[in-house]
Amino acid sequence: MRILLTNDDGIYAKGMYSLYLELVDKHQVVIVAPESEQSAVGHALTLYNPLRVKKIKRNGEFYGYGVNGTPADCVKIAFHEIMNSPPDMVISGINLGPNVGINVLYSGTVSAATEGAILGIPSIAVSLNTYKDPDFGFASSFTKRLVDVIHKNGLTNGICLNVNIPAVKREMIKGIAITRQGTSRFIERFEKRIDPRDNTYYWQAGQASVRDEDEDTDIKALANHMISITPLQYDLTCHKEIDYLRRWRIEV
Amino acid sequence: MRILLTNDDGIYAKGMYSLYLELVDKHQVVIVAPESEQSAVGHALTLYNPLRVKKIKRNGEFYGYGVNGTPADCVKIAFHEIMNSPPDMVISGINLGPNVGINVLYSGTVSAATEGAILGIPSIAVSLNTYKDPDFGFASSFTKRLVDVIHKNGLTNGICLNVNIPAVKREMIKGIAITRQGTSRFIERFEKRIDPRDNTYYWQAGQASVRDEDEDTDIKALANHMISITPLQYDLTCHKEIDYLRRWRIEV
Repeated sequence: MRILLTNDDGIYAKGMYSLYLELVDKHQVVIVAPESEQSAVGHALTLYNPLRVKKIKRNGEFYGYGVNGTPADCVKIAFHEIMNSPPDMVISGINLGPNVGINVLYSGTVSAATEGAILGIPSIAVSLNTYKDPDFGFASSFTKRLVDVIHKNGLTNGICLNVNIPAVKREMIKGIAITRQGTSRFIERFEKRIDPRDNTYYWQAGQASVRDEDEDTDIKALANHMISITPLQYDLTCHKEIDYLRRWRIEV
Repeated sequence: MRILLTNDDGIYAKGMYSLYLELVDKHQVVIVAPESEQSAVGHALTLYNPLRVKKIKRNGEFYGYGVNGTPADCVKIAFHEIMNSPPDMVISGINLGPNVGINVLYSGTVSAATEGAILGIPSIAVSLNTYKDPDFGFASSFTKRLVDVIHKNGLTNGICLNVNIPAVKREMIKGIAITRQGTSRFIERFEKRIDPRDNTYYWQAGQASVRDEDEDTDIKALANHMISITPLQYDLTCHKEIDYLRRWRIEV
């Protein structure tokens, strides 16, 4: 298969490199990724600035294309300008840190997979549930096998998969859970600080929410040391609310 | 009511000012908005840079707080730092240009309303369907009345409304449609150019898709000169796909 590989941690990130090495012996892999870290950019696009595409080497050999834009930009420019024909699959990751619960909305990693789905390409986002000392080995080999399963079964058009992998030893992983997006979010906190010129500034921090999650959520699966796979789509409509609103009397 | 007013066109934008003037005689309005234009930032957050909050004057009087961040940042910092207690409603807009179809995903205007919904506050995003010579008069007075209707009826927790208003004379408006998000998107196009130093760059452009839309979509409603109101939520799970995926054989 021809696979477009991208991420939001930037083209030099270890997680993408590990996955690249795993995939490249079997597939044709084209890397188009942000030049610098783009975490929490959500589904942002770069419209008001030019995009530049740089050829990036790794270990002295051509590795991929670095773009001064967001993950969504990367998928679009790969599709329209860099690749001569659409890829068979878009893979975003492997991200350092989980993308579960409401934080999925802020995730550049997930937005790249959503962008692939919008373009009609089977797409997955892969994240590892740790922020430090990551070992991407198992996550990479699992992703490689998942790619084959997706290829064999076929994904419904417009759907992408959000995959989160526990950062524990393989023998500790309890299984695979097909999940839904949980409702927990980081409870943000702004640190108020004073800069060297005596001006106030704020730094956005956060802590994990303590909300109890149902068994079928991505968050609970990860907590239970299961690989979480959530199918995502990009229709934000709350269909259940439509009938309720139609009973309102609103005048022009 | 205490209303938090924000946008993605920036704190100096005409659309927000028109709405502010309309609301301020009846409500307590707190403006917290990006200092500069933030279109197409999606649901981005500023985590790796400090945020600064500036008091902004208009016509010599205090007008609101300008933030060097995204619309989602503005809602979060207003909620956690600027306002002493949560607002009764979050309003984002009035945006110059529609936010319908798949472009809802890229919209900073909508992301501010979604952020309000995540925080448990009734929230709306309001956009005017034109990019030039905007007359925000009717859109502002309609929004003011809609605010009362929402306050009277109550919005389900976690839902925000995406409101798009035709840019035609009031007597041309055919009514109000409760809609779903359409599936049309801009078909993007990258203009390849050469800079003064002979380097290639790309500029992301786009044209409206020609996809046929169903009658119950936001896009079709606007085309029919109706005000479109779409209830949005922030669970991206494709629930229908879960059973299908559970039948796959995936091994750890």
